[in-house]
Amino acid sequence: MLTEAKDQSPHHVVIVGGGFGGLYAAKALSKAPVKVTLIDKRNFHLFQPLLYQVATGGLSAGDISSPLRAVLSRQKNTEVLMGEVTKIDPQQQTVKVQNRELNYDSLIVATGVSHHYFGNEQWAPKAPGLKTVEDALEMRRRIFVAFEAAEKETDLEKRRAWLTFVLVGGGPTGVELAGAMAELAYTTLKNDFRNIDTSEAKILLIEGMDRVLPPYPPELSAKAQASLERLGVTIQTKAMVTNIEDDVVTIRKGDETEQIAARTVLWAAGMKASGMGEVIAKATGAQLDRAGRVIVEPNLSVPNHPNIFVIGDLANFPHQNDKPLPGVAPVAMQEGQYVARLIKQRFKGKTLPEFHYNDYGSLAVIGRNAAVVDLGFIKFAGFPAWLAWIFIHIFYLIEFDNKLLVLIQWGWNYFTRKRGARLITNQDTPPLSVEEESDYRTPVEV
Amino acid sequence: MLTEAKDQSPHHVVIVGGGFGGLYAAKALSKAPVKVTLIDKRNFHLFQPLLYQVATGGLSAGDISSPLRAVLSRQKNTEVLMGEVTKIDPQQQTVKVQNRELNYDSLIVATGVSHHYFGNEQWAPKAPGLKTVEDALEMRRRIFVAFEAAEKETDLEKRRAWLTFVLVGGGPTGVELAGAMAELAYTTLKNDFRNIDTSEAKILLIEGMDRVLPPYPPELSAKAQASLERLGVTIQTKAMVTNIEDDVVTIRKGDETEQIAARTVLWAAGMKASGMGEVIAKATGAQLDRAGRVIVEPNLSVPNHPNIFVIGDLANFPHQNDKPLPGVAPVAMQEGQYVARLIKQRFKGKTLPEFHYNDYGSLAVIGRNAAVVDLGFIKFAGFPAWLAWIFIHIFYLIEFDNKLLVLIQWGWNYFTRKRGARLITNQDTPPLSVEEESDYRTPVEV
Repeated sequence: MLTEAKDQSPHHVVIVGGGFGGLYAAKALSKAPVKVTLIDKRNFHLFQPLLYQVATGGLSAGDISSPLRAVLSRQKNTEVLMGEVTKIDPQQQTVKVQNRELNYDSLIVATGVSHHYFGNEQWAPKAPGLKTVEDALEMRRRIFVAFEAAEKETDLEKRRAWLTFVLVGGGPTGVELAGAMAELAYTTLKNDFRNIDTSEAKILLIEGMDRVLPPYPPELSAKAQASLERLGVTIQTKAMVTNIEDDVVTIRKGDETEQIAARTVLWAAGMKASGMGEVIAKATGAQLDRAGRVIVEPNLSVPNHPNIFVIGDLANFPHQNDKPLPGVAPVAMQEGQYVARLIKQRFKGKTLPEFHYNDYGSLAVIGRNAAVVDLGFIKFAGFPAWLAWIFIHIFYLIEFDNKLLVLIQWGWNYFTRKRGARLITNQDTPPLSVEEESDYRTPVEV
Repeated sequence: MLTEAKDQSPHHVVIVGGGFGGLYAAKALSKAPVKVTLIDKRNFHLFQPLLYQVATGGLSAGDISSPLRAVLSRQKNTEVLMGEVTKIDPQQQTVKVQNRELNYDSLIVATGVSHHYFGNEQWAPKAPGLKTVEDALEMRRRIFVAFEAAEKETDLEKRRAWLTFVLVGGGPTGVELAGAMAELAYTTLKNDFRNIDTSEAKILLIEGMDRVLPPYPPELSAKAQASLERLGVTIQTKAMVTNIEDDVVTIRKGDETEQIAARTVLWAAGMKASGMGEVIAKATGAQLDRAGRVIVEPNLSVPNHPNIFVIGDLANFPHQNDKPLPGVAPVAMQEGQYVARLIKQRFKGKTLPEFHYNDYGSLAVIGRNAAVVDLGFIKFAGFPAWLAWIFIHIFYLIEFDNKLLVLIQWGWNYFTRKRGARLITNQDTPPLSVEEESDYRTPVEV
């Protein structure tokens, strides 16, 4: 209560970012004698782990989003502000949110990461990534346009290029996308076309390391690979994408180079910290790692700035293992809750032991009935893992209320294999055959 | 079987447009000895009567769309072609679909209408209409941006302008939008903001005629008006919008002119036939009415072209009453089924009596628990009408399979009043206060 007594107004906690980290921090402060302002560029929390389902037509964007105002509606000490933070002033203790300034007593930055192209930013329009709702809808558009274009194409070579999907990156996102793409091409769409056989589609997953899911134990990587191959996915490991053009992707494996005729390239590789990393570094002198993440203290604060915290994907927390904690939702949630607890303890003149991440395991889904789960003490795969995956995801969705619907939608998709949300939107003109392909690009930013 | 015998290949029915008319025609031909090609610019059928729910965040676009290929997947005599018809040649019996030509034996055109602005096309970017999924998402974006901007605005006058929503047109779309907007502002969002009281929002419905729902019996119009007013909607009848600017709408009532400070104007007025009307007129010499609709023969064919049919909103069928049949889904469905039956009868050398529309009544929803229903022999309003409305809409949705989900989503919305699909998408920058408002317009076409 020190701060409160001092300046007559409650301690103000400003949280930047409404992802898992920021939202869990805000929720953990619901009963605290503080004022909370949660700032986000978007008006909704996005359940990113399911974004690949939106990209492949299984769920609508609304199914995996919760309006931030609705989530925090009853938390009376908390205000939501839709805006973008562009500057931090640690001396004045202010953040600049577009055209206004906000005072803070404690600042929590949780703005996450976006995808990047390892210095090949010119690939961005050709190989969309998967971080935002718009990204997912753009992927969805391209995937379904590719099948439509293939259906119209009479040249067999060109048709094959429309039916070749290259997924770059064999991490969880790439693996889940590959599984969903296989399900889509080989099951859902099987009877929908008259001129093409969608089971001839080629789904190619490219990974630079020697196995898919590199952060997982090797035996699970092997199981994931086997499951994907059973679904019909072609996997190339130790392979690097060296060039992406409109209709050809170049891949290097050791000394060999291969050119693959493909119209659709989906990016599930590099991640880079959001611009807030730079803003923090500039304001506080904090160090960034190569991915632009802020290297934080054991209590998640920025060095020499005990009231500025960085959590979630934007933070590099190197104190627990020899490598930073992974950029996954459970890490962000636990960090958010830790910082909230720390702020509450400070009111009591107390402190907290340093942050420790409790790893309850990792899991990735590969398709209908197949997933891999690593709970540390037990690793398993196949249908039980898939059920566990569904259960855990639904559990977290329900945390943000109305998402029982997703369970029903999934149940429905499961039994009907319909993928009813496969709308091609934001496109004025239907796809043409390949010669006139440049006509059908949309003016919407990618 | 005459045609079949003649040219060795089955009679080819080309259907342009996958709305209610085109899709019902295609389905009614499923067992016929013909080949069917359904052409649509989009890859999905849209359940337009619920589009206002998407615009107000109650449903996702995927919930009211069905992929055309999925709907017709098992109908083996039918092919779906995503494309745009730009020309008809009745002599050669061909249609031009972008870069290819298609022969037809029978042609059914069902491309519907879009909204228009009575010669004030400059209003389009200021007052979006509601015909496509993109329209609905643009409305949704504007509605929720307006509340966000009001929350940030400290000038009370300007805040009031952000909280004023002008709906132009008191037909079913305008009435349903107004009811949903009232529910949104006065119930759903009530506790979500900290600086504004959303119950101070003003929802203004402007109608040029002397009552809302002009096509309905006067007593139902009165009931609809009473229900809307109970919900908090302000209704101005005999009022014309004469100008729309960024922050002010000008309305004329008789000799009086009123200026209303409003940042959000939604267009639910004029309808105009799609461009295919002109294409048909040019190719066949058919007459168009003032709205650009094709005036058809009693059997829905184009004069002097017995194998070219126009159905649905694009058709002006003046033979049943003293005025054309209304542009509603049941008319389009019955017309589609009639033409399919006519084509089948021709194989048997038979003909059909002229088309007759069976009017089972009309209904419009006004909000939670309130609707108006006119079944001819009985008119009723309120909760029973609302239940009837839900039942009938769900019934038609289920016709196109997986839409039981909508019922569940509605049940959920009904009990929680959440409107979880209120995402602001396709917008790079969060809304600013009014001075810098021009910054937040999006490059996406309206």
